[in-house]
Amino acid sequence: MKTQEKAAENKVCPLEIAVNSISGKWKIPIVWQIYEGKKRPSEFLRGIGKVDRRVLNQQLKEMEQDGILTKESFNELPPRVEYSLTDIGKKLVNVLWLLNDWGKLLIDNEKV
Amino acid sequence: MKTQEKAAENKVCPLEIAVNSISGKWKIPIVWQIYEGKKRPSEFLRGIGKVDRRVLNQQLKEMEQDGILTKESFNELPPRVEYSLTDIGKKLVNVLWLLNDWGKLLIDNEKV
Repeated sequence: MKTQEKAAENKVCPLEIAVNSISGKWKIPIVWQIYEGKKRPSEFLRGIGKVDRRVLNQQLKEMEQDGILTKESFNELPPRVEYSLTDIGKKLVNVLWLLNDWGKLLIDNEKV
Repeated sequence: MKTQEKAAENKVCPLEIAVNSISGKWKIPIVWQIYEGKKRPSEFLRGIGKVDRRVLNQQLKEMEQDGILTKESFNELPPRVEYSLTDIGKKLVNVLWLLNDWGKLLIDNEKV
């Protein structure tokens, strides 16, 4: 209830939280990789390129804390870790598609 | 056509452009202020608070260049300047509402 009051006071607030949660440099590419079926940090590293492992782990941790990703650890040798999108993460993908469409408008506009 | 080819090569691209174009610290609040009917930089300054005029002007200029805002200058004394949302800017507002809804999910999730 308190959060809803806060949100009512300041309309921008949930939007700011949303934008902050995806503003980390590799967060959107990470969501995209997982959406495309990749699960393991080593796959993200190959898919994204320039990111280093320490930074990747930090971003994954933040996204897990935000409730966008879940992490599953398998008790194997060598230990295996897999990430997947939560329901909230899947809903983010839907919004990102719309933002992607909007980005195309920006690009088309620049050409004119 | 070239841009579409580029977009096809790298799916993240229009999305990155979209996110970059709204990542400037005051850009979303500016869009919101204009959406609520405000037009003049002095009104944005009052509505947003902590932003300084020089930074505000820089952000307005970038958003004008990106095709999100249009600027109209009135030849009066003192000179008057008004900003409004372009069609692309209005479409951004629609996506921001959805991102706002998604932000509420993040907030609700944090409470649990």
